[in-house]
Amino acid sequence: MKSVQVFAPATVANVVCGYDILGFAVDAPGDEVTMRLTSTPGIRISKITGDDGRLPLDPAKNTVSASVQHYLNALGQPSLGIDIELHKKMPIGSGLGSSSASTVAGLFAINTLLDNPLTTMDLVPFAMKGEELACGHGHADNVAPALLGGFVLIRSYEPLDIIKLPFPEDMCVAIVYPEVDVPTRDARQIIRSKVQLKDAVTQWGNVAGLVSGLFMKDYALIGRSMVDVLVEPARSILIPDFYQLRELALAQGGIGFGISGSGPSVFALTKDPETAKRITNTLQQHLQKIGIRSLSFVSSVNQQGPVVIG
Amino acid sequence: MKSVQVFAPATVANVVCGYDILGFAVDAPGDEVTMRLTSTPGIRISKITGDDGRLPLDPAKNTVSASVQHYLNALGQPSLGIDIELHKKMPIGSGLGSSSASTVAGLFAINTLLDNPLTTMDLVPFAMKGEELACGHGHADNVAPALLGGFVLIRSYEPLDIIKLPFPEDMCVAIVYPEVDVPTRDARQIIRSKVQLKDAVTQWGNVAGLVSGLFMKDYALIGRSMVDVLVEPARSILIPDFYQLRELALAQGGIGFGISGSGPSVFALTKDPETAKRITNTLQQHLQKIGIRSLSFVSSVNQQGPVVIG
Repeated sequence: MKSVQVFAPATVANVVCGYDILGFAVDAPGDEVTMRLTSTPGIRISKITGDDGRLPLDPAKNTVSASVQHYLNALGQPSLGIDIELHKKMPIGSGLGSSSASTVAGLFAINTLLDNPLTTMDLVPFAMKGEELACGHGHADNVAPALLGGFVLIRSYEPLDIIKLPFPEDMCVAIVYPEVDVPTRDARQIIRSKVQLKDAVTQWGNVAGLVSGLFMKDYALIGRSMVDVLVEPARSILIPDFYQLRELALAQGGIGFGISGSGPSVFALTKDPETAKRITNTLQQHLQKIGIRSLSFVSSVNQQGPVVIG
Repeated sequence: MKSVQVFAPATVANVVCGYDILGFAVDAPGDEVTMRLTSTPGIRISKITGDDGRLPLDPAKNTVSASVQHYLNALGQPSLGIDIELHKKMPIGSGLGSSSASTVAGLFAINTLLDNPLTTMDLVPFAMKGEELACGHGHADNVAPALLGGFVLIRSYEPLDIIKLPFPEDMCVAIVYPEVDVPTRDARQIIRSKVQLKDAVTQWGNVAGLVSGLFMKDYALIGRSMVDVLVEPARSILIPDFYQLRELALAQGGIGFGISGSGPSVFALTKDPETAKRITNTLQQHLQKIGIRSLSFVSSVNQQGPVVIG
């Protein structure tokens, strides 16, 4: 039977000031899904690797199969026979859009197998359904960049309005994942539901600055706009030595630094891979000194979203 | 003695979603200042026209002279002899940056008379001092576009960080000033100091969309981003039939519609002057029906800020 293997990228949501509206994709890490049409009706997850047994094999509970099921229902083929293998190639619960990468790989795979009845943009709402299952909130700031690649703005959720933003082609990303546990649900709960208008004004000034910087390919403007006065102060307490890490990253030449999604991963934007590598080395050394294990990734910004790799 | 005559443009602050951070200048209306170096030390306001006697002739209380005095102090020439004539060519208290236009004309005039020791960008803080005197709050979303022309983003106030944004060259503006009284001080006071984070997210999604739309010269994106869920609901109650005016303006082909600054003027962006004219006609007819006198202006977006006209 027909089968396809798809890679989908990890993503950095929020990009410091753009809580819930901005995100971008990286070339590495990411997840892989192998999907096969079968003659047995219904979706089956035959294998998950790289998750240490943490992800459910039950198709109703797994975000990949659940979002593929939504897709099939919408296309009027609810009982299509499908076998899914999910290969996690990135840490779960790291703030790098792990569930989004898997979900997006799955949706891109089924859409490819059915000869692309929907556009990639059309897949976003189905991926958001997967996010709702994974973290209790159907946000799009991971799934949209994972699907579309590059920097993505979610201008509005109702109606959904997604805009691809340009960015400097040579931009690189340094990511460090300190291996501490910060579930997205908890990370959202520590954020206050009311904020000072004056802080909100500061925030949307920075959002406007960051978007302008991306269009103008102005690294200095991008960097000085990467300031979050509303969400980071609360979330940073969950990340060991966050402000020292920030200082180190900027001292090593990072354009801007912040929490990736709800953390605990942190990231820095840089102009080249060497600077990114220097930053991950420095941050990992610091974390090691204070007894925290970590993983790191150096990547360019992903341009194209998911790709068929086999 | 040396003299100069300067025109400075009216401005639309906020641009609906960008409270305190966005503004643009229009080609008309605007104010004029005639300034003359004299041998008598100190600043003197010899004449103000078009203000119905509402503006102070006392140099310490008038925003034009007061900001010019700040400028002279900073340049180490506090006692320079100066004569100012101010010609108001736009309504005061209309929400069109009336005090800013005068202040900017004055600062541009003195800087011209002294052979431009400061750049136009350098004049912004002095103009903000004038705003502080005029409305109790040293904001920059009128003075910065009045000085720089075009669309302007104030990314940050501390430190001051101002970015010129591109815009579609053919963009026009319809402005209607319903002659009701809305002092800026009062208009600011009715805004709540705390807001829901989810509303703030909606707002910065729209700010990001508007900025993207300006860079992409995408009228549809500009229009659907011109939504304000935080400030407009409070301020609109001071403007007669605000939501009907909005509906009429959009029905006549307006790209987007909202309050200019703190009101009571309202404005619509359009793709051409004919549409703008149709909108001002329709809105003025409606206001007349409900017994409100009004003035209207149709203009292109100003490209260059203040100009020497004599």
